Amino acid sequence: MTLTHETPSPIAEEQLTVLGARLRAALDGPFAAERAVGRATFPADGMHLDPAVGMEDAREWTLARLIELERRGFGHSGVPDGANAVSDPLTAVTTFEMLAHGDLSVTIKSGVQFGLFGGAVTNLGTEWHHRTFLPGITDLTLLGAFAMTELGHGSDVQHLETTLTYVRETDEIEIHSPTPSARKAYLGNAARHGTMAAVFGQLVVDGEQHGIHVVLVPIRDDHGVDLPGVTTGDHGHKGGLLGVDNGTLQFDRVRVPRRMLLDRYGGVTDEGVYTSPISSTSKRFFTMLGTLVRGRVCIGGGAGITARRALSIAVRHGLRRRQFPAAGRPEGVLLLDYLTHQRRLLPRVAEAYAYGFAQNELVELLVKVQGPADHTEADQRELETRAAGLKAQTTWFANATVQEAREACGGFGYMSENRLTQLRGDVDIFATFEGDNTVLMQLVAKALLTGVKESWSALDRSGVVQATTRMIGEAMVERTAANVIVERVADGARRRPEETTLVDRGWHALMFEERARHSLDSLARRMRAASKSGGDQFEAFNRLGGHVQFAARAHVQRQVLGAFITALEQDLDAQTREVLERLCSLYALASIHEDRAWFVEHHRMSLGRSKALGDQIDALCRELRPHALPLVEGLGVPEAWLGTAFLED
Amino acid sequence: MTLTHETPSPIAEEQLTVLGARLRAALDGPFAAERAVGRATFPADGMHLDPAVGMEDAREWTLARLIELERRGFGHSGVPDGANAVSDPLTAVTTFEMLAHGDLSVTIKSGVQFGLFGGAVTNLGTEWHHRTFLPGITDLTLLGAFAMTELGHGSDVQHLETTLTYVRETDEIEIHSPTPSARKAYLGNAARHGTMAAVFGQLVVDGEQHGIHVVLVPIRDDHGVDLPGVTTGDHGHKGGLLGVDNGTLQFDRVRVPRRMLLDRYGGVTDEGVYTSPISSTSKRFFTMLGTLVRGRVCIGGGAGITARRALSIAVRHGLRRRQFPAAGRPEGVLLLDYLTHQRRLLPRVAEAYAYGFAQNELVELLVKVQGPADHTEADQRELETRAAGLKAQTTWFANATVQEAREACGGFGYMSENRLTQLRGDVDIFATFEGDNTVLMQLVAKALLTGVKESWSALDRSGVVQATTRMIGEAMVERTAANVIVERVADGARRRPEETTLVDRGWHALMFEERARHSLDSLARRMRAASKSGGDQFEAFNRLGGHVQFAARAHVQRQVLGAFITALEQDLDAQTREVLERLCSLYALASIHEDRAWFVEHHRMSLGRSKALGDQIDALCRELRPHALPLVEGLGVPEAWLGTAFLED
Repeated sequence: MTLTHETPSPIAEEQLTVLGARLRAALDGPFAAERAVGRATFPADGMHLDPAVGMEDAREWTLARLIELERRGFGHSGVPDGANAVSDPLTAVTTFEMLAHGDLSVTIKSGVQFGLFGGAVTNLGTEWHHRTFLPGITDLTLLGAFAMTELGHGSDVQHLETTLTYVRETDEIEIHSPTPSARKAYLGNAARHGTMAAVFGQLVVDGEQHGIHVVLVPIRDDHGVDLPGVTTGDHGHKGGLLGVDNGTLQFDRVRVPRRMLLDRYGGVTDEGVYTSPISSTSKRFFTMLGTLVRGRVCIGGGAGITARRALSIAVRHGLRRRQFPAAGRPEGVLLLDYLTHQRRLLPRVAEAYAYGFAQNELVELLVKVQGPADHTEADQRELETRAAGLKAQTTWFANATVQEAREACGGFGYMSENRLTQLRGDVDIFATFEGDNTVLMQLVAKALLTGVKESWSALDRSGVVQATTRMIGEAMVERTAANVIVERVADGARRRPEETTLVDRGWHALMFEERARHSLDSLARRMRAASKSGGDQFEAFNRLGGHVQFAARAHVQRQVLGAFITALEQDLDAQTREVLERLCSLYALASIHEDRAWFVEHHRMSLGRSKALGDQIDALCRELRPHALPLVEGLGVPEAWLGTAFLED
Repeated sequence: MTLTHETPSPIAEEQLTVLGARLRAALDGPFAAERAVGRATFPADGMHLDPAVGMEDAREWTLARLIELERRGFGHSGVPDGANAVSDPLTAVTTFEMLAHGDLSVTIKSGVQFGLFGGAVTNLGTEWHHRTFLPGITDLTLLGAFAMTELGHGSDVQHLETTLTYVRETDEIEIHSPTPSARKAYLGNAARHGTMAAVFGQLVVDGEQHGIHVVLVPIRDDHGVDLPGVTTGDHGHKGGLLGVDNGTLQFDRVRVPRRMLLDRYGGVTDEGVYTSPISSTSKRFFTMLGTLVRGRVCIGGGAGITARRALSIAVRHGLRRRQFPAAGRPEGVLLLDYLTHQRRLLPRVAEAYAYGFAQNELVELLVKVQGPADHTEADQRELETRAAGLKAQTTWFANATVQEAREACGGFGYMSENRLTQLRGDVDIFATFEGDNTVLMQLVAKALLTGVKESWSALDRSGVVQATTRMIGEAMVERTAANVIVERVADGARRRPEETTLVDRGWHALMFEERARHSLDSLARRMRAASKSGGDQFEAFNRLGGHVQFAARAHVQRQVLGAFITALEQDLDAQTREVLERLCSLYALASIHEDRAWFVEHHRMSLGRSKALGDQIDALCRELRPHALPLVEGLGVPEAWLGTAFLED
């Protein structure tokens, strides 16, 4: 059975336009070297599975592919393979990116094994765990599940029901699922291949709860049979990622030796006493979860790559396929020459660049926080907020983009051999796992509002009780590089915003700045009013749900624009700069256009300007149209890797 | 192998709330009796295929299911089974609707066999064709493909390359695919089961082209082997509808007897002379295509049912699943009690009702045009325009709604056993087949503008040369019942629109009316300017692509609101009326909210009102929330038919 499309020498053939190569270098940015090496060395032969293959074959192929990649040096994604080794975040992220160019089941199974299961052992475990388990994890002889989510508690980790009870008599930890809703669910590696799980639950020592901890629990024997007390389940067929064996785990008073508890942030001493370097249960919880931020960074990156793949397919298709004949075009109009078609695809190409630059900054921050260099607690907090926000935005973007690409390719797009429908099925769940997007956006808003509250209290303490909303607003802006640059660029347009052109970067920055600032100010005010209102507190806050999402999105978009503007400050030749400037304008205007009602309602933009936006976006699309091929080359997906049948005609 | 989830007595168990039953009756409207019978008698046992089944099994199951349905009297969807029998449009549409509650591959394969292939024979053929082929078509011993689309000409039927050449010497028709792009593509029944095809091509008699005609061509022998000169191909795995065997057909000078030409609108006499009751090639073309309108009506209806299924699943899930605990809700907040969750789903429920009422009107029009009663050419034209517009809008709506429902169900939604991901994959292509949606919306605009042009010429002839844009605008509104009612209701708010409340129906009608009227006026003006501009004519019109889509959408939305308002005039008890009035407001406000920038930019709405829309939508969601269950019951999908694992817990 040949399960793969063979692509023997995939990268050697790649011939880019000069502009395409330069755009790619600019977009790869600080990681241009790593990514170039990745593209040149990634084992791209056999990277795509035949989409007609059923679930059982897909599962086995995915594991085999993972083992093959490990054998060829593209394995364990930055997880250290020995005791006390330091994990390498940059390798983890770039490996994940390369994997996301191929079958996404492989990408995600790798993420489960190395990022989640391996990450838990690395980050939450201590020396004995590293020495004992990391070798097997990295060489794939020990496959594990990351057992956090429960059926009854999807996004609510703090209230998981599973209990991890210390049993003094035998010096063991007893893992138990007290109710049906405590069943662990959706876990990769749980349905078939995993023999161990990192199980999240409430640690109880002598009747006292110490909050969420993680323990390693063997779940299957070598023959794949459930161990006593463990019940594994299989979610079976899914909407995508068929090669990932998602399943459930239920525990009936299963016991493991005490040392299986991953005890970096909290454990039980030889005397049977609970001990932790972090005294606050809540702070300990967030510290433990904070180590998982890398997963969100990777998922956002993978979603970005998926969107780029879809855009590469759809734009290349639009450059080949002709439609109805028209005046002066007897052979038919090239699809991408229709303005409506350009409007479907080119603003999304611009957005893909924007998210790419933002992702670069996020990875730099991840490397700063998780690498050997020093970092502050503020860095860690900022990393968490940015990772949450960007993961939500890029995964939503990827979903919408793959669907748009599918429709833009018409019937071609629906044939599995052209990959788009499989990409859509696979990337769909990215919006839900590693944190449901809507919940993540709430986290972003909450983090910003915590900032408000702190600034506010500080103001109060210093006697400036009459803090105006404006002051509160200014106080809460994170002083990140991206925000500083947006503010600086915006200043150029602040005095006479309506006298700028529509492609004035200062005006874009001002609009993004005002949207983020005002929506957060307004949310803070409403939150305050809600907290003081009588009646049903839940309902008082519940009414603000839409505002929360809007403010969080505006905040993320400001960061993304800041990243794009920063990227434009790198050394670029004239043509590359001109194209990137237009892309930046297209990204900014598309975002302003989408929210133009808000800008007009809040007197940030005149009606005349609002009406002119659409034509300006059209004009940018027309200006960028001649560069369509270099633009998708710049997205960095080698044509040979697309694995798309219609491009091979 | 058990391929189906058994649902032994699916309808007997259905216990509706009183409100749910009344809403359902109201939404079923003029076809309440037919639909009630459909629900009570539809063979719902075995209606869902195990989603893990592979393509080959899915294809065989789908055919077997079709044969089973035929055996149990739910077969040939209104296609007559004898000579000269009149096809029954209402049975066709209601059967299609019922089928759309189950596996959509069955629905579409039925549509291919009875609606397209059978429809071509019925509507384009004459007595001999009916007598000879309809018995086999209806009892499924003769399976056929509808070979219209070509690889190179997806939406451009008029320029198909396939030739049907009359060969005088042997009194035959020779079917030929002159180029690779002339290959017929994406045809259901072509890859596996079809033994005949209705082939569209350019009819050539004595070297003279007579435009598009259709001929019946045997393609396979009884053993499934391609007949000489015929090359069939298989598209293989697709993004959905796995049970439909889509394939390609290529002809190398294949000959069939002359009488195989479907000659109702044009044929060749015994003397070898071309003859047609319609002299204009172009008019003949549109008449022939016009008979295919039923397919679009069915697809729109099927998409509507698919959206209802998804909403039924997601709302019922939101009424069972709890999230984070909150003040006064220690057991966790019910998902549907989150306002953000209500905003995701309830406006879509309202929209599902709106499209349902519009579909009812469309089916009434179809029955008028295709049934035994008299109809005018204007009726036929209106039917075509409405079918095109509503097909595009409902299929887009279905796609977005299924995805929203998937995300609203989180991880549950991703498991195939809960049906949503399969629904999404299956309904995806509805946006492309039976006319690409973007192209269909162009057809709608074109039809409206043709109206403009005619009115305009009429004005000119009568000497009123100085016709103002306003007059042109008024002249072009179709005098359909829906438009008349919207205009009448709008009049109540016209004088002082800003003094109405946000739930004033007159104001909604006025906004919909103004949006449709002004955008079309403006488009007409721009079109006129474009036609007079020098330079590249294609580019001059190309720039108007966005306006075309907007004006067409505004037109369809006005019809949809008109249908909803008309439905509210039926006899209803107080509570049902109150709920439907709120749904109508929610539908109208969500649509106005989406375009609020346009309304403000065009001075149709004040900034204050624009800002207030969101809160009003929130308020309606809260008011409708207690009726969530009856609302989805009203959508008419029996709970037992959902086939959703988590609802069976």
